[in-house]
Amino acid sequence: MIRTDLAVEAVSAAPKDLPGVTCEESSFCGVTVSRVKITDEAGEKELGKPKGTYVTVSGENFAVTSPDNLEEVRRCVAKELSVLAAPYLDEGVLVVGLGNKNCTPDALGPRVAERILVTRHMKRELCRILDITRLTAVSCLAPGVLGQTGVETGEIIRGVAERIKPSLVIAVDALAARETDRLGSTVQLADCGINPGSGVGNKRAELSQKTLGIPVISIGVPMVVDASTLVSDMTGRDQDSLSSFGRSMIVTPREIDLLIEHSAALV
Amino acid sequence: MIRTDLAVEAVSAAPKDLPGVTCEESSFCGVTVSRVKITDEAGEKELGKPKGTYVTVSGENFAVTSPDNLEEVRRCVAKELSVLAAPYLDEGVLVVGLGNKNCTPDALGPRVAERILVTRHMKRELCRILDITRLTAVSCLAPGVLGQTGVETGEIIRGVAERIKPSLVIAVDALAARETDRLGSTVQLADCGINPGSGVGNKRAELSQKTLGIPVISIGVPMVVDASTLVSDMTGRDQDSLSSFGRSMIVTPREIDLLIEHSAALV
Amino acid sequence: MIRTDLAVEAVSAAPKDLPGVTCEESSFCGVTVSRVKITDEAGEKELGKPKGTYVTVSGENFAVTSPDNLEEVRRCVAKELSVLAAPYLDEGVLVVGLGNKNCTPDALGPRVAERILVTRHMKRELCRILDITRLTAVSCLAPGVLGQTGVETGEIIRGVAERIKPSLVIAVDALAARETDRLGSTVQLADCGINPGSGVGNKRAELSQKTLGIPVISIGVPMVVDASTLVSDMTGRDQDSLSSFGRSMIVTPREIDLLIEHSAALV
Amino acid sequence: MIRTDLAVEAVSAAPKDLPGVTCEESSFCGVTVSRVKITDEAGEKELGKPKGTYVTVSGENFAVTSPDNLEEVRRCVAKELSVLAAPYLDEGVLVVGLGNKNCTPDALGPRVAERILVTRHMKRELCRILDITRLTAVSCLAPGVLGQTGVETGEIIRGVAERIKPSLVIAVDALAARETDRLGSTVQLADCGINPGSGVGNKRAELSQKTLGIPVISIGVPMVVDASTLVSDMTGRDQDSLSSFGRSMIVTPREIDLLIEHSAALV
Repeated sequence: MIRTDLAVEAVSAAPKDLPGVTCEESSFCGVTVSRVKITDEAGEKELGKPKGTYVTVSGENFAVTSPDNLEEVRRCVAKELSVLAAPYLDEGVLVVGLGNKNCTPDALGPRVAERILVTRHMKRELCRILDITRLTAVSCLAPGVLGQTGVETGEIIRGVAERIKPSLVIAVDALAARETDRLGSTVQLADCGINPGSGVGNKRAELSQKTLGIPVISIGVPMVVDASTLVSDMTGRDQDSLSSFGRSMIVTPREIDLLIEHSAALV
Repeated sequence: MIRTDLAVEAVSAAPKDLPGVTCEESSFCGVTVSRVKITDEAGEKELGKPKGTYVTVSGENFAVTSPDNLEEVRRCVAKELSVLAAPYLDEGVLVVGLGNKNCTPDALGPRVAERILVTRHMKRELCRILDITRLTAVSCLAPGVLGQTGVETGEIIRGVAERIKPSLVIAVDALAARETDRLGSTVQLADCGINPGSGVGNKRAELSQKTLGIPVISIGVPMVVDASTLVSDMTGRDQDSLSSFGRSMIVTPREIDLLIEHSAALV
Repeated sequence: MIRTDLAVEAVSAAPKDLPGVTCEESSFCGVTVSRVKITDEAGEKELGKPKGTYVTVSGENFAVTSPDNLEEVRRCVAKELSVLAAPYLDEGVLVVGLGNKNCTPDALGPRVAERILVTRHMKRELCRILDITRLTAVSCLAPGVLGQTGVETGEIIRGVAERIKPSLVIAVDALAARETDRLGSTVQLADCGINPGSGVGNKRAELSQKTLGIPVISIGVPMVVDASTLVSDMTGRDQDSLSSFGRSMIVTPREIDLLIEHSAALV
Repeated sequence: MIRTDLAVEAVSAAPKDLPGVTCEESSFCGVTVSRVKITDEAGEKELGKPKGTYVTVSGENFAVTSPDNLEEVRRCVAKELSVLAAPYLDEGVLVVGLGNKNCTPDALGPRVAERILVTRHMKRELCRILDITRLTAVSCLAPGVLGQTGVETGEIIRGVAERIKPSLVIAVDALAARETDRLGSTVQLADCGINPGSGVGNKRAELSQKTLGIPVISIGVPMVVDASTLVSDMTGRDQDSLSSFGRSMIVTPREIDLLIEHSAALV
């Protein structure tokens, strides 16, 4: 089993004909949409990820691609997110930007949070001004990481969610991929939350319906490759023998600052 | 009644011999410590602030003063804070950095939050390493402002506090003063929380034992003068006639970026 | 004579029928373009500004206005700049972002500099890729301020200009206005450079054909009102009696961080 | 020949008994000072670096080490720099912070530049206030990178140097190392400037007495390992076969943002 946050990479590294896993893929205008469904425990075990739907939208490097390619990625992400979120919008959405804003490759979540247009506190005024009758209440939080707050991120979100009672949490996070080509060129959406073992910085605690009591959709963009994964791939050496190295070092594109900005704007 | 977050300024603008208010002041090495106690409702009404103790430590402009002056201010603030906080440390402290990190004069709270050494998540390890048996669990939050989150700051803090159950909240915020000399040279500590009408950016909601169910100590440094206050002082015109002007404009020192950094480091 | 960097404000504060000064103004779609020409020494003396053309494009607050209003301001600024710059593009343009990036109200120049698409170092490749035969070589510098570099800004620019020999310098700077309504809603272009007495932070040294040996077009957006100007206006007291106060304090909109971003993007 | 900016790494990868190269090393309090001298063309060719003295001061990771270790590194760097710089201080020092402030691993130079206390513009006042008769005039520049300015960094420095005529340039830059242990734990000083092939971001142009006509001392801290170097080391594959990969990817510590701050403060 390889270390990656992308279900689509886990599938392509696994043997063919996985039980409990279905895959489909389509391409249009240089953008590929892959859909991996893990349907039972056999699939969970095989891919090391919980049951659910994982949608990957892949274009070209978001920092340098053409506006057309970027627009097509954006359109696909918006469409897929609409489908995943549609059943859960009644009572409002809490968007959570995970990660550490002071660590560039881990800053996707906080940077996205800065761009969210929140509506919860002025729902009535907006309905009046826009002359509409329904508007999803959007709120947003960038809780920081354990080392900054002393509190598990899940505890913060749970505490806030219990007060404002959203019907959906959307968690945005930077991801780790296996292939360097994926960095800053892929968006993964999943309907089963964020799970242990994921994340760029420190391991995130699980954020899911199970832990929060609310459905959690995750959106992520891979920003790093674990150095131990990279070296293991290249050398055939066991990942675990490289793990102390991999814990402290990351492999990231040179233009990571730019990539985070472009990816945050896209998301 | 004048617009200021500093009790000591409210007192000096009021008539002598206020009922329900006691004041004392001492100076040492160029640092003045003033203590205003509002003891009953007459005092509350007179000064427009709730019952409690307000301690002001005043030195010289924190961005340019001598290291000795700064050190003396720091020593006094630490001593006063110890006294105010001592009864409430049993179950841990939640430090809250109020304000908008993207608006420089309002960024004191978030900048202080970045500097807090949190201990709650590694209390046991720290006790072992430092060979001590007791350590106050410190956690920290910079919740952002209503326009960023869509959630009242008080709701966020209350939600988190209900989960981690601290015995004290310390709220750090930028303040508005009446006199420009106060900007970046004064620290106010109060044992009655943050109250409506305070704050640099938008009016903050009340954060106090009443609203959170936990004692709240506030620490603030004045960073702006309301333009309407300044002009009203100079011209004798009614503040309310100037209020739409004052809502959009602030008077702040030229070196505000530097002042925020130095003040955050001091706090 | 009042303290303002805007020629149009200097004119409106002066008596009618100024010798050596011509003014015209036109409005379209909520955007006003004013053109002040100072044609001789009488006009220079009257307005406290050197001979030249000063064009002011005024819309609504750039941080909150409608996209249409912003687009119309942009269109007008682009057109006016084209006209002023057209005679001097042969050998390339050096764009200079003046001011201190670490002092928000003074950061317009450096923030604009971050957004300039420089072409000088890849002129040939761009001509080939874009299949064009002529392209103005654009270079860009954000030299910092005297307190950061120890070198007069004019010396840095002159040193670099002597090596790369541009035919035009465009200097971008934050300005001081007299009226708070002007802040973040007005762009001034002038064909006579930056002159002593201007500037938000410290007084800038003169940057002009006379000091650099190259034509200098300045572009600026007012971001502050001198506190002494404001109070003097309100109280009728002499500005000089307030000058030590005015040197240390500025009056600026609450949303100055946002305003700088929007203004930099527009310019 | 391996890709590293550290002479001490180049030596340790080379065969013993290099002609034209002398090495010595001493340790004290957990800090190692290595001195590599390349004395003739044979040494230049062998190590791929120009003639000169390269001093490496190595402690522990600057972001997490003890204050004592940090202080000892600082003391050694200060002492070595004094020795290297002593002959050239007569007419003043121009400190140059190389690199791109918007790309974290490449931002060491600009971050150091922000911390330099410049004295050139107030030499007389400082001498009077401090009651001294001699003071080295220090000036400072963070010129940005070619992609931001359109001008070769060397051209900018040369233009400015011709106007202010310093007797020494000190160039600060982020470096690339071969071993991940070196990142953020080593300072290299050299008396022969910055040379092609060095640098984290893009290849820097040479900055040396030859190109500027002034002695150039370089100070650098390694912040990245080229991904191609790392993989080549691990796999034994030829670096050039990996070079397109290596050009776009870097290997950097997780805590790079923190490391840059601590390293900049130390330098």
